[in-house]
Formats: sequence, C-alpha cells, structure tokens
Amino acid sequence: MIRKKQRGQLIVLSGPSGVGKSTVISELLSERSDIYFSVSFTTRKPRVGEEDGVNYCFVSKETFEGMIGRGEFLEYAQYVDNYYGTSLRVIEEKLAAGIDVLLDIEVQGAAKVRDKCPDAVFIFIIPPSFEELSRRLHSRNTDDESVIEGRLRKAREEYKEISHYDYLVVNDKVSDAAAEIMSILVAEGCRTKYRMNLVEGV
Amino acid sequence: MIRKKQRGQLIVLSGPSGVGKSTVISELLSERSDIYFSVSFTTRKPRVGEEDGVNYCFVSKETFEGMIGRGEFLEYAQYVDNYYGTSLRVIEEKLAAGIDVLLDIEVQGAAKVRDKCPDAVFIFIIPPSFEELSRRLHSRNTDDESVIEGRLRKAREEYKEISHYDYLVVNDKVSDAAAEIMSILVAEGCRTKYRMNLVEGV
Repeated sequence: MIRKKQRGQLIVLSGPSGVGKSTVISELLSERSDIYFSVSFTTRKPRVGEEDGVNYCFVSKETFEGMIGRGEFLEYAQYVDNYYGTSLRVIEEKLAAGIDVLLDIEVQGAAKVRDKCPDAVFIFIIPPSFEELSRRLHSRNTDDESVIEGRLRKAREEYKEISHYDYLVVNDKVSDAAAEIMSILVAEGCRTKYRMNLVEGV
Repeated sequence: MIRKKQRGQLIVLSGPSGVGKSTVISELLSERSDIYFSVSFTTRKPRVGEEDGVNYCFVSKETFEGMIGRGEFLEYAQYVDNYYGTSLRVIEEKLAAGIDVLLDIEVQGAAKVRDKCPDAVFIFIIPPSFEELSRRLHSRNTDDESVIEGRLRKAREEYKEISHYDYLVVNDKVSDAAAEIMSILVAEGCRTKYRMNLVEGV
C-alpha cells in the first residue's frame, strides 16, 4: 500500500579492509534482493575466488585511465597502488528507476559521493577492535605481513573520517550487522521528505 | 557487545486523534519492553476502558494549572478544551539512566520539545486516508458527530506540521507501522554520533 518513493536510495558502505564488508553485503543482498549492488571497477588483481563482474570489474590501468578521461566515474580513488572507481551511468539509471543502489567504496570515494549526492546514506562498518581486525586479515591468508601492516595503518587513517558518516555499524556478528543495516534502510525510507506524497491536502 | 549509548533516546510520536496511536504504541511496547512510555497528564475525562496512570494521569484543571505554575512540564498544550502535558522530572531521570522514553503528544507540544530537545526523534503517524480516519473515529463510538467533525478539522491542521517531523509512518496495518517504528529506533541507535565511543584511537 505504501507507494515506493520515486527515486532509489543511494547507500554508501565503507570500512577497513578485512572488516568483512563483502560478507555483510552478501547477507544483506540475500534478504533484500531488490537492492542493486554496484560493482566497482578496479585495477587490482582478483583474489582467489573473486569473479570478474561479481566482486569487481577487473580492468587494466590503461582502461581505467581511459574511463577517467571520458568522465565515466561518479568517483574513483587510488588505494594501495590500485585504482577503484564507480561507474556513473549504471547508478543513475537504477536510481531513476526507483531502485536502491549499494556502493562499497573507501573513504576518499565516499567523500566525493557526499559532495555530489547529499541525499545518499553513509554507513561505516568497523570491527569490534583493531586486534580483531588484525586477526581477520591474518586469517584471510591472502596478504603477506607487510601488506597487512599497510592495511592496519590505512584503517587507522580511515577511522579519522568516521564522523562524516551518518551511521556506524560494528561487524561483530555478520547477521547482526546486516540486520542493523536493514533497519537503517527501512528507517531512511520512512523519512518524511520521501513520503510527503502520502499526505492528503498538503 | 555493543555498548549502550549513555543517554536514552527521546522519541516523540504524534498523529491525529483516531489514527490508532495507542494500538501502535501497545504493539511497540510489547516488543520493546525496555522503552519507558511517558504517561501524559490531562484534564480530559477518561474514556471507557482507560485507566489512570496507564493511559493518562487524569487530573483536575486546578491541579494541572498548579503544575504549570511550578514549571513541572516539559511541554503542555490545550487541545479541544483540555490540557495535556508531559512531566519533566520523570523523563529526565529515565533519559539520564540510559532508558529510551516514548512520548505521545500532539503537534503543539512536539514543537516545544523540538526546541528544547533537538536530539529527540520525531515520528508522525497518519492513516491511509482521511476517509479511513473518519471511519475509525466513527467506529470508536465514543464521540458524537460534532466532536468527530472537530477532530477531522484538527487533523487537517496538524497535517501542516508534518514536514517538521523526521519520519512519517502510515498506520495501515498496526504490525507494519510498529515494525517501521522499531526499525527507526534501531537506526537512530546506529547514528555515528552515539557510537563514537566504540571507535578506537579517535
């Protein structure tokens, strides 16, 4: 009965490498299959088990820089020597069609989206502790010690941006974190500014 | 694991007479027994089935005016010839103890709370339509036609204040409305400003 708001909601999710964003996102999308997860472009190499077009669109540095030149990114950033970027066209199409779009981007990219899309919802995911983050990065078994050290240093840098995010979710248990994010999305959909079309005579 | 924010959340619920606020609140409190529902003081007569100290604290006009004189109200207002007011002391005690407090107040009172408590969450509940509101008021069988007409006129006045509320919930089905409010409360608890104590090294 409650009419869908006309434009989709843009949801920006950030959090340090190793916090478990992908797992939380999978859980979220399994409950909310109506959300479009925007697959980022990256120049980094796929990790074991990652699929092109699913986890990322894996492209060469030359291709990525060509896309930058043609203005094809809503945002892009460099992170640990690789480019990451979000295609503008696809997102615009989905939002215009009333579909909610989820972006998994790091803090530099999120800052750019914040400037361009003030109505987007910004959620930062943290681990219960840095100690736990370190444990998760080690247990992933994909990076050597120096890379892990780099990621932990980067995480501390990213934490300085947390106050710019609307919501903070602790990924202690994946299902709890996903449930909180689902509540955030329900609540954001209840915002008066999106529902004034339901009010008669105003 | 997620530490409770230190201060409770003040939640303000408004909506026209007959929208079903009491039923939605009962449903909400049955799921969230940790919320303290602030019982308003009023000079109006109890309706059939209403209990003193449960639905309202029913007091005389003289008692109410004495409390006004002693500054004992967070807000009070006159509505259809009766006073309605919210006791300041009890609410302050609960919020300070980290307990969420729910207020059911009309738009004038809510405006006063908005000035005094900018961190409160403001939720307005509407019926699916005015036609349905009229039907609900008639089926309540407690008011004669002229009182119902007055309530419907008042509702149209109250609707002009909706844009000042953070959230708008349509009470079509009570369980859906209560579920949306529960999501709003979860989301508000996830706000970064309340969780910075969980962020290490910032």
